[in-house]
Amino acid sequence: RIDHHRTLRRGFPEVIWGEGKTASQVLSIMSQLDDKGHHILVTRLDAKKAKAIQKVFQKSQYYPRSKVLTQVNHPVEMVGKGTILVITAGTTDIPVAEEAAVTAQLMGNPVETLFDVGVAGIHRLLSERERLETARVLIVVAGMEGALPSVVGGLVNRPVIAVPTSIGYGTSFGGVTALLAMLNSCASGVAVVNIDNGFGAGYVASLINRM
Amino acid sequence: RIDHHRTLRRGFPEVIWGEGKTASQVLSIMSQLDDKGHHILVTRLDAKKAKAIQKVFQKSQYYPRSKVLTQVNHPVEMVGKGTILVITAGTTDIPVAEEAAVTAQLMGNPVETLFDVGVAGIHRLLSERERLETARVLIVVAGMEGALPSVVGGLVNRPVIAVPTSIGYGTSFGGVTALLAMLNSCASGVAVVNIDNGFGAGYVASLINRM
Amino acid sequence: RIDHHRTLRRGFPEVIWGEGKTASQVLSIMSQLDDKGHHILVTRLDAKKAKAIQKVFQKSQYYPRSKVLTQVNHPVEMVGKGTILVITAGTTDIPVAEEAAVTAQLMGNPVETLFDVGVAGIHRLLSERERLETARVLIVVAGMEGALPSVVGGLVNRPVIAVPTSIGYGTSFGGVTALLAMLNSCASGVAVVNIDNGFGAGYVASLINRM
Amino acid sequence: RIDHHRTLRRGFPEVIWGEGKTASQVLSIMSQLDDKGHHILVTRLDAKKAKAIQKVFQKSQYYPRSKVLTQVNHPVEMVGKGTILVITAGTTDIPVAEEAAVTAQLMGNPVETLFDVGVAGIHRLLSERERLETARVLIVVAGMEGALPSVVGGLVNRPVIAVPTSIGYGTSFGGVTALLAMLNSCASGVAVVNIDNGFGAGYVASLINRM
Amino acid sequence: RIDHHRTLRRGFPEVIWGEGKTASQVLSIMSQLDDKGHHILVTRLDAKKAKAIQKVFQKSQYYPRSKVLTQVNHPVEMVGKGTILVITAGTTDIPVAEEAAVTAQLMGNPVETLFDVGVAGIHRLLSERERLETARVLIVVAGMEGALPSVVGGLVNRPVIAVPTSIGYGTSFGGVTALLAMLNSCASGVAVVNIDNGFGAGYVASLINRM
Amino acid sequence: RIDHHRTLRRGFPEVIWGEGKTASQVLSIMSQLDDKGHHILVTRLDAKKAKAIQKVFQKSQYYPRSKVLTQVNHPVEMVGKGTILVITAGTTDIPVAEEAAVTAQLMGNPVETLFDVGVAGIHRLLSERERLETARVLIVVAGMEGALPSVVGGLVNRPVIAVPTSIGYGTSFGGVTALLAMLNSCASGVAVVNIDNGFGAGYVASLINRM
Amino acid sequence: RIDHHRTLRRGFPEVIWGEGKTASQVLSIMSQLDDKGHHILVTRLDAKKAKAIQKVFQKSQYYPRSKVLTQVNHPVEMVGKGTILVITAGTTDIPVAEEAAVTAQLMGNPVETLFDVGVAGIHRLLSERERLETARVLIVVAGMEGALPSVVGGLVNRPVIAVPTSIGYGTSFGGVTALLAMLNSCASGVAVVNIDNGFGAGYVASLINRM
Amino acid sequence: RIDHHRTLRRGFPEVIWGEGKTASQVLSIMSQLDDKGHHILVTRLDAKKAKAIQKVFQKSQYYPRSKVLTQVNHPVEMVGKGTILVITAGTTDIPVAEEAAVTAQLMGNPVETLFDVGVAGIHRLLSERERLETARVLIVVAGMEGALPSVVGGLVNRPVIAVPTSIGYGTSFGGVTALLAMLNSCASGVAVVNIDNGFGAGYVASLINRM
Repeated sequence: RIDHHRTLRRGFPEVIWGEGKTASQVLSIMSQLDDKGHHILVTRLDAKKAKAIQKVFQKSQYYPRSKVLTQVNHPVEMVGKGTILVITAGTTDIPVAEEAAVTAQLMGNPVETLFDVGVAGIHRLLSERERLETARVLIVVAGMEGALPSVVGGLVNRPVIAVPTSIGYGTSFGGVTALLAMLNSCASGVAVVNIDNGFGAGYVASLINRM
Repeated sequence: RIDHHRTLRRGFPEVIWGEGKTASQVLSIMSQLDDKGHHILVTRLDAKKAKAIQKVFQKSQYYPRSKVLTQVNHPVEMVGKGTILVITAGTTDIPVAEEAAVTAQLMGNPVETLFDVGVAGIHRLLSERERLETARVLIVVAGMEGALPSVVGGLVNRPVIAVPTSIGYGTSFGGVTALLAMLNSCASGVAVVNIDNGFGAGYVASLINRM
Repeated sequence: RIDHHRTLRRGFPEVIWGEGKTASQVLSIMSQLDDKGHHILVTRLDAKKAKAIQKVFQKSQYYPRSKVLTQVNHPVEMVGKGTILVITAGTTDIPVAEEAAVTAQLMGNPVETLFDVGVAGIHRLLSERERLETARVLIVVAGMEGALPSVVGGLVNRPVIAVPTSIGYGTSFGGVTALLAMLNSCASGVAVVNIDNGFGAGYVASLINRM
Repeated sequence: RIDHHRTLRRGFPEVIWGEGKTASQVLSIMSQLDDKGHHILVTRLDAKKAKAIQKVFQKSQYYPRSKVLTQVNHPVEMVGKGTILVITAGTTDIPVAEEAAVTAQLMGNPVETLFDVGVAGIHRLLSERERLETARVLIVVAGMEGALPSVVGGLVNRPVIAVPTSIGYGTSFGGVTALLAMLNSCASGVAVVNIDNGFGAGYVASLINRM
Repeated sequence: RIDHHRTLRRGFPEVIWGEGKTASQVLSIMSQLDDKGHHILVTRLDAKKAKAIQKVFQKSQYYPRSKVLTQVNHPVEMVGKGTILVITAGTTDIPVAEEAAVTAQLMGNPVETLFDVGVAGIHRLLSERERLETARVLIVVAGMEGALPSVVGGLVNRPVIAVPTSIGYGTSFGGVTALLAMLNSCASGVAVVNIDNGFGAGYVASLINRM
Repeated sequence: RIDHHRTLRRGFPEVIWGEGKTASQVLSIMSQLDDKGHHILVTRLDAKKAKAIQKVFQKSQYYPRSKVLTQVNHPVEMVGKGTILVITAGTTDIPVAEEAAVTAQLMGNPVETLFDVGVAGIHRLLSERERLETARVLIVVAGMEGALPSVVGGLVNRPVIAVPTSIGYGTSFGGVTALLAMLNSCASGVAVVNIDNGFGAGYVASLINRM
Repeated sequence: RIDHHRTLRRGFPEVIWGEGKTASQVLSIMSQLDDKGHHILVTRLDAKKAKAIQKVFQKSQYYPRSKVLTQVNHPVEMVGKGTILVITAGTTDIPVAEEAAVTAQLMGNPVETLFDVGVAGIHRLLSERERLETARVLIVVAGMEGALPSVVGGLVNRPVIAVPTSIGYGTSFGGVTALLAMLNSCASGVAVVNIDNGFGAGYVASLINRM
Repeated sequence: RIDHHRTLRRGFPEVIWGEGKTASQVLSIMSQLDDKGHHILVTRLDAKKAKAIQKVFQKSQYYPRSKVLTQVNHPVEMVGKGTILVITAGTTDIPVAEEAAVTAQLMGNPVETLFDVGVAGIHRLLSERERLETARVLIVVAGMEGALPSVVGGLVNRPVIAVPTSIGYGTSFGGVTALLAMLNSCASGVAVVNIDNGFGAGYVASLINRM
């Protein structure tokens, strides 16, 4: 039966939160959904369970970095009106970024990525300014001091969805520092989701990009 | 001189953070901006300073509940493509909601409000379901347990900007409880701004509604 | 010897906190209690220990989801004057709910359950309104943003015992967010127990339902 | 207009949260409610506002310690089936206890009080054991280390509603220490409300005592 | 070489903090100290390392519950002037209590213990009042709500050293709740040491009992 | 009536917690106690109330720095067996130190003080080493980083009662940093009381010094 | 007498922490120091006290924004080997920056300032890159999300002393968010001082610039 | 590809954060850097990965205590103008100290160490005063109560870089207590880096020592 904690909607992919479910529980839910012709997105699914699921859903695709599995029954309809750009501060933030990117793609958006452009090397970011400006919605993923959304938010006139990650040590407090920094961004136009919630960022960015 | 902590952009109203500035400092900044023909939004401005400012800027409008002052030089151009609906859980959340509403209006959006529809009386909210569904972007303002964005997010397929307020006592911790609840919303499509940051919510909602 | 941290009372089942005890320690306590004819409830008992115990107490019943074991020597006397309804927001909250339900049953109450009616899909909850209204005491179990007790508390005129669960990630802080939300509920009539304390909720609900 | 954050119900007194409302706002709400014949309870109302209100509602009663005002139009119907006993650890906890007591009385319950029986002088409490045992519901109010509900909960077989107060200094953290202690009570049968929430405790105790 | 984080003094046993040292590191330190004829106390030493050490120090004694090892070269001189009484609230607090007791014994004190007399069953404690009153120094060990030192402190006119333990779940926060409760004790005469610091309590109690 | 949150004992001065009581409430309690011939200690009493009290109790002594008032009816009997030395890190810690010193004096102890010997000027402390070594019990009062008890604890073989003060700014968090440092002292023989609790330190030191 | 919490050294200005001292106490200390020919720096001194002091020390200079007063008896010897550049993110951070600048100047350093170059308008900062590169030590002062030190640290090969300020609201938590961000800076070469500790930053930068 | 979270600079060793990278990922980055003739520093690299890397980079050196690996292609040029002294409070702080020392050495500094001179045995530290005074920059590493930097800062007129470590238990909170103590140091001249950030301390000390 479907976990409604990541709620489902008409015309959207069905989403299953993989954590805390057995492979057979996930399979059972997927079978029900698949029968109805839905696209399916499973998040937080470890590699072992994914392997078991792929024996049954042989066309499903698994992303080991982000622990996401997708099952697509027919070509995803492109409904997004522009590009969603997913940016990370570091390479270690990529798994969360990938969760956001896969979610946005499955929801019908062209997605581009720009990884490893943290604020300590500000010119790498600035050299990509054109890509920043052509995106319609931006998802900015960062751990540690979480400063990147403020800089990006100051460079564009588009909504920025900030995603703190649990990357760091000591006083990073598992992402809390990055989250707090993002909530206190001196740039307007930044809204924030939960720590490591790449899915949520991809989802809300998709809602915006349909408009 | 202009406080850039709430950054300025081309074609947008100029924003002045009133807290920690004297009336004469605010006046000085306003005069510079006014000469250039900008709309001006002053936030967190107490009544006494507002009075002093209105002696000079006689057409400016002051909103005592939300401590916002606006100076509009020519009719605001309507650029928003739909309605932004600002919702509150309680009556005590209205000042923050008003800050969001005034911001969104000044940025060229039709704004509607729906106040005092907290989750402990869920039918008041449900009886307004049509208004929820016709809004293009929703701003949901709540203190205490901060549950309203989750319920609203489950009822609409539009982006929900959640604003925690510092309303409450004891373990509300000045809005932290509401903030945490919103970040952990079981509804997808919810993004969050800082506690009492009505301005930020109005701003990001406006960016979205232009799209 | 009996762990008095979950205290015992006349006519009530004897309760053993399984965590931090070996199987043989639990067995030894159970034997003493069993000789006196008491019903026994063991909480937080992992599957391996349960297996060892069931070799001796062959009629005991083990609930693997909630890690509870019961040993009932004679039919439990029904002393509750109405139904205790145990509600969860999500499927992942069920283990804690089950601990509450088993406790309440062993203490002589008719127990019903209503699972997976979280606030992001409010109509699932509302469609069960009749069941809510016929319950005498309600136990509401929720993790993440912990909003469900507020909505339930607004729909009924009965005491609501709210149980936060450690379900969630990032800023759910192992149940603290849900706990804080419940303590700040805008609905009157809600009282709260410790995170994941299904036993405690079942116990206090039973005390109430005897009245 | 009525603040619904402390929700209203059929046959119950109407409750107004006085904090953050002007005397004239409270008066306006009271007038509406009074016209309908409701009992009225105003909480967190400071003495100055109370004085203004009592000029209009001359029969209303104000409790300066707990900052509660009641307006009773006809004799309160006794619906509670037993006595609610309100206990405090210290004399400084009395204001919160009084809020609980006044709430419970207005909701139709016989209320008794037992003040200043903190655990550092355990015999004062034990000498009142008979009163503890004859109460049907107990409200235990304590600040500082918040230990009293555990001791009371171990002495009775009745539901105990624990109310932490913000009394203390240093690491009492405005009542957080007392709250945490109560949530971790080693006595079963204890449920907790927000810090200083005497109203909430009186309310839930009244719901229980009607049963 | 000796870890000075638990400092050494003339005429006292030498103390080695076992955590984070290999068995051979501990052995090497012990050999140096043993050559000088010192008594030795090793704390936080897991069973596996202890086994390796006991092959060399065959007369050493290992306490598996508290993970303490002692090596005594000649009879410990009794320097304490009275009895140190070590009390616990629950059975799960015993390991920390044992660390305190072994420390105090090795420092030359008669030690008695009184376990499992938590405040939810207050009469078990009161029935031992004579033992409380005859002790010269009391060490009170408790997890969860940490209320026991307050009650004990109210019953005796002797110094009470309170030791919070990390026993509990949810909002016990690994002993922080018990610690805070003890710091806010309404009984005078209570001083507190770090969470699970049985050694520290035994040490300071010994200093006092020599006086 | 007497506030029992700072409990009373046979032969000890009676203690009244002045905070939150009116001058007339304090006077009333004092009169009762005075009639019985008790010494009286009032803590946390502001200057204005003290003035009112001294009009009645004309021989009482008020200490404005520490906000303590004492009323002594006959010479205090010296029961302490040695000197209690009260040490502070800075001059701003003196008010709390004075509360401790006055308490200890009234409880019959010779008291000496050593102020302003913080660890950033370690030689000031070391030049007083003889005084440290001749004291029987030491009370060490420090705010900010709270390091002084560790250094003192390493220099003496006597019990050290550490008192964190709320002196500092920013991350001193009102004394929490000093408290945490003291609880984690690398010196054995240190026990801690609540932030700013000079009274508690003086009390427990007195209990020890009687032994 | 001198407050040693901000310790004094040979050849350095004498520093007096003004907070919590009366004007006459400060005057008394200043007189002693002045007699010995020391430069004097008084921090955290409010305007009223400053006025009283300047009546006696007529050549002293008071900086109302940063609440610093200096008394210089002879020209300050320039000992710094390069320029210390003090940078702020916003205009509201200037008071803390000024405290740092005045401290560094009095300690014999050429000081330059660069205010209001926060990361949301990154080009303002980049347009000053030459000044950044010619400084020998940089002090970076920022509140809110505290991101500026990371960007500056990535642009220069010089030590960066980061100072969090208490500027912000909601989850800025009085500067804690900025502090955490600075501690987690992804740029190497950044070290941090306490919230609002402009003095400390100026001091350590001066020590470095003498080298 | 290179992790830029620990940024790279001209003439400095290249730094790779080993945590969260596979051995082959690290190898690939090292090969690229090695081809360009850079010195390489890998931090937070566990022993197993190090072994795999050393099969390829046979001249690389691995420090198992601090989990650091260095690959030096040609003699490191000495650019530091004096000695950097790395001090620890305890033996368990040595791993973090070693990370600092290896970093500083690879950046061209003479490095000395002084281990296990915690404040509870203050004379060990004082007996090394000459070494303290001859160092040009000091790195002070401490866990638990984090007091050592305050004492060292009071003894020298050189910049002190303080590094809190996660050593401790209970309320050490993984290094937070030590961090807070260091930020609140009563000694001027102390700046702080993140918990366990030996690398950062070595880096900033090297920047200073080049000056």
